[in-house]
Amino acid sequence: MKVSITGTGITKFGELWDKSLLDLAFDAGNEAIKESGLKKEQINALFVGNMLSAKFDSQGHLGPAVAQVLGLVSPAFHIEAACASGGLAIHLAAQAIEAGEYENVLVLGAEKMTDVSTAEAASGLMGAASEEERDAGLTFPGLYALMAQAYFAKYQVSQKDVAYASVKNHLHASLNENAQFGNKITVEQVLKSMEIANPLKLLDCSPISDGAAAVVLSKKESKKPFISASSTKTDTLSLSQRKTLTEIIAAQEAAKSAYRSAGVSPNDIDLAEVHDCFSIAEVIAMEDLSFCKKGEGAKLIKTGKTTIGGKMPVNTSGGLKACGHPVGATGVKQVVEITRQLEGRLTKRQVKNPKIGLTHNVGGTGATVVVNIIQN
Amino acid sequence: MKVSITGTGITKFGELWDKSLLDLAFDAGNEAIKESGLKKEQINALFVGNMLSAKFDSQGHLGPAVAQVLGLVSPAFHIEAACASGGLAIHLAAQAIEAGEYENVLVLGAEKMTDVSTAEAASGLMGAASEEERDAGLTFPGLYALMAQAYFAKYQVSQKDVAYASVKNHLHASLNENAQFGNKITVEQVLKSMEIANPLKLLDCSPISDGAAAVVLSKKESKKPFISASSTKTDTLSLSQRKTLTEIIAAQEAAKSAYRSAGVSPNDIDLAEVHDCFSIAEVIAMEDLSFCKKGEGAKLIKTGKTTIGGKMPVNTSGGLKACGHPVGATGVKQVVEITRQLEGRLTKRQVKNPKIGLTHNVGGTGATVVVNIIQN
Repeated sequence: MKVSITGTGITKFGELWDKSLLDLAFDAGNEAIKESGLKKEQINALFVGNMLSAKFDSQGHLGPAVAQVLGLVSPAFHIEAACASGGLAIHLAAQAIEAGEYENVLVLGAEKMTDVSTAEAASGLMGAASEEERDAGLTFPGLYALMAQAYFAKYQVSQKDVAYASVKNHLHASLNENAQFGNKITVEQVLKSMEIANPLKLLDCSPISDGAAAVVLSKKESKKPFISASSTKTDTLSLSQRKTLTEIIAAQEAAKSAYRSAGVSPNDIDLAEVHDCFSIAEVIAMEDLSFCKKGEGAKLIKTGKTTIGGKMPVNTSGGLKACGHPVGATGVKQVVEITRQLEGRLTKRQVKNPKIGLTHNVGGTGATVVVNIIQN
Repeated sequence: MKVSITGTGITKFGELWDKSLLDLAFDAGNEAIKESGLKKEQINALFVGNMLSAKFDSQGHLGPAVAQVLGLVSPAFHIEAACASGGLAIHLAAQAIEAGEYENVLVLGAEKMTDVSTAEAASGLMGAASEEERDAGLTFPGLYALMAQAYFAKYQVSQKDVAYASVKNHLHASLNENAQFGNKITVEQVLKSMEIANPLKLLDCSPISDGAAAVVLSKKESKKPFISASSTKTDTLSLSQRKTLTEIIAAQEAAKSAYRSAGVSPNDIDLAEVHDCFSIAEVIAMEDLSFCKKGEGAKLIKTGKTTIGGKMPVNTSGGLKACGHPVGATGVKQVVEITRQLEGRLTKRQVKNPKIGLTHNVGGTGATVVVNIIQN
């Protein structure tokens, strides 16, 4: 696959009470189109990633809703796959470009989550899980806490060990003016923060956020970075039906498929944006993506290898934890971050001369996973 | 395009209080897979069309949710485009097959609407319209009533003229054991039924329904009917921003594109399933699809040409009006109906030797339109 990323756009992430979902879509979409140098008539299709607008904003039918505010008249598609909505929209758009269906496509991920109460947001997010999990009274922190408990027991890893993921991501976010949380934190602060679902503390958890991100994907070759592989895999929605709680099989399969398709190995990856909805998720992602052996994800993060300045920085944006997690936007934001890093245009958090980046976007507890590889 | 339809499945449409959304998906999906003769491992992808599950059932993430109940492990995509969700899922799946991404794809449209009150259903459906339309207090009958008023004024057409669409569709539904309403009705009954939004009466309006429909699409050539063209077009979400209220431009453009792509003309169409969410919508569809001149849609229906036994039967299933309108299922149901007609397997309502059929699926008041052409 060789699909050029000719434009990127992103809004601030956070509690954006002065912006509606469509305001955010307008801002990110127009920035990406402007950057691509294309006229709006040259955008042949629009793919929108969003999970919760129909529930929180009463707005479904987001394809034409977003097309209307951006002044596009192209075919428009709304893709929903929980927190992987943005990544899956990128995947389908890249496939359509690669197949020759369209010359230029705008992919827009957006979510507006802070206009409802935290309880309503948590309830809405449980739409990403299965009915039996909702009926059992589980929340997403609860589901990932089950994974963390199993992981801690299997690998003798502690709350303190995984806390380094949050500390690193807040450090990175302090260098990102668009991040929701620009404050640096310490391991001690993570451990002392409020317990959410044992063993997860408040500072192990990504926040509720508003935000949008957009990319223009193009068939025509350019000097811009390009997507060299995009893979998606599915697993059961229910955690109880999985073979293991300590790995995300769909992530492993999507990564293998993407590495093979792009002809690269995990060692070739210079930087990655991974789905750290909880600190334990980033630890497991390191292993699922073959960046280290099983049980060694926390150690990898602690060594500093995945911090900016290290050999393979992870979540230079601040990740979901500190940059924020407007769920439908996240998978698109990951691609924006990697693209801008490959272009060398991120001053304060710029990684030195990266050539190959990876994005890892997870829906639910791993029922949908999308892995993209992006190259210079 | 040449994408074989190797399997079809459908549930009864109606108030199915003993079935959940996933029960319906299970029934229709398994029927289609069984009919295709494929093993579940041979299904390479799943496309799900649904509008309202996250809002009405708390269940988002429908790709893996449906995959889990069907025992599929393929990549899974949930497409939402209001009442065109099913048609758009077919469109994307057919494109992916045609592009060589997958050998066999299951497309499943499903909706469960009768577990909420009619007021909640009406409010949820307004997610298909724009914020300004919701803020103005409009409902979908209200929006189509505006179109009907403009149409009646422009073409000197009456409530009685358009009532024939409902009468015909109830007649057809009386021959369809899966239809929600199998009762025949008269023009007088339509005119005497309760007023919903002037000039639309109760019997001008499609109902709130539960139901699911599924097709297996395959790359490999077979003796089964095939999709020879699939086009989608987008227009503004808001009716107020359109050039006209008496035509649906996106439908005209999608139809033109589909006719050109398949190399057929409107005269070649032997039968069609069109989006008669209201009787006026079927009248306008006749014109948008170039089956007659502007202003002559009602006359065409009244002549009996579109009744079973006529030259080009329309909505042999009973249409949205009488077969029912589980919104995400409708676009897929249309393809199931045409496919089974082309296969000659619908005893009571079978059309004689049809060769070319068309489906016309509309989201909102025409912001999304999908037109498919299916041939023998």
